[in-house]
Amino acid sequence: MPILHNMKPSGNCYKVRLIAHQLGIPLTLEEYEFNSGRTRQPSFLAKNPNGRVPLLEFDDGKAMAESNAIIWYLTEGTKFQPETKWDRGIALQWMFFEQYSHEPYVAVLRRLLAHGPKEETEARRNELPKLAERGNAALRVMETHLAKNDWFAGGRYSVADVALYAYTHCAEEGGAFRLSNYPAIQKWMKRLEAQPKFIPM
Amino acid sequence: MPILHNMKPSGNCYKVRLIAHQLGIPLTLEEYEFNSGRTRQPSFLAKNPNGRVPLLEFDDGKAMAESNAIIWYLTEGTKFQPETKWDRGIALQWMFFEQYSHEPYVAVLRRLLAHGPKEETEARRNELPKLAERGNAALRVMETHLAKNDWFAGGRYSVADVALYAYTHCAEEGGAFRLSNYPAIQKWMKRLEAQPKFIPM
Repeated sequence: MPILHNMKPSGNCYKVRLIAHQLGIPLTLEEYEFNSGRTRQPSFLAKNPNGRVPLLEFDDGKAMAESNAIIWYLTEGTKFQPETKWDRGIALQWMFFEQYSHEPYVAVLRRLLAHGPKEETEARRNELPKLAERGNAALRVMETHLAKNDWFAGGRYSVADVALYAYTHCAEEGGAFRLSNYPAIQKWMKRLEAQPKFIPM
Repeated sequence: MPILHNMKPSGNCYKVRLIAHQLGIPLTLEEYEFNSGRTRQPSFLAKNPNGRVPLLEFDDGKAMAESNAIIWYLTEGTKFQPETKWDRGIALQWMFFEQYSHEPYVAVLRRLLAHGPKEETEARRNELPKLAERGNAALRVMETHLAKNDWFAGGRYSVADVALYAYTHCAEEGGAFRLSNYPAIQKWMKRLEAQPKFIPM
């Protein structure tokens, strides 16, 4: 059974748990505490030199890092990827948007405000307004798309929606963002949560 | 002919020009000046609500953003993607690594030091050591991989190498990074530059 090196409050790890459950792939979870430093120790770095979870490790010892690469790999050839080459490109467009323009602001501000450590939040207090501004900019890009589309790619629920849902649905934690400002996002989250075999974070 | 909305000094745009040339796909270039603000104007935002280049626009009006999604789309089904599902996942692992752990530090420090505007570089002077530290961390991850492998995925030149080459090869601009500290990266760049139909930035 594959081992998911996992942090419970990590949206990136949740992406893998959610799509694996919907695909019917059982996972063994190896838990890491937030801020424990365990992913920067030599035994972990031997598996992922970039020192991050999620990391999905298979019985033969092979391992894959980067949440969006893992969920792309798991869904290749399944109904969770769009059917056409164009729409697969658009799905990846949104997944790269998520990692470049969304996660570094939406997830990081939520982490600082809701999951500490307090010393880091204090030390980075000057950065918080910029994180809020850029996170809201990403949420507005999503809102613009969702005002006219039910899903992010291919006209149906896909791996791109999983990638964007992970840190959007918990963006209010710690008072980081107000999702009531984004009605189309709220409706999309309800549609996503009504999908078969949905599991909460 | 597809229109590439392009900025000359942007490594993200160069990725698209390089792989399109190697695929034999001619592009019309629509040039944008660095720091001109033109990508944040309504006519551009109508094409890409995220306000960034590269954007690849097709004759039928459809457009794709995010450099790594564009080059993945262009190379699907070609020799520039690995042959197995696993290796395609690993290629994407490195491409997400590039956008999350490499570009925000390696590309941003080079931009601030070599391509101004000076007021922004001054205003962000306190951030520069952190950008250098994290950029060097990303280069060390690449060096570790390349000390044992010629290429990033599937044992041959692929779209993953293009993604990582774009901002690595110009990382010394403005004195941002010293590539002589990374001998395996330097050898990999030489291999890449010897590929058929290679074009410089």
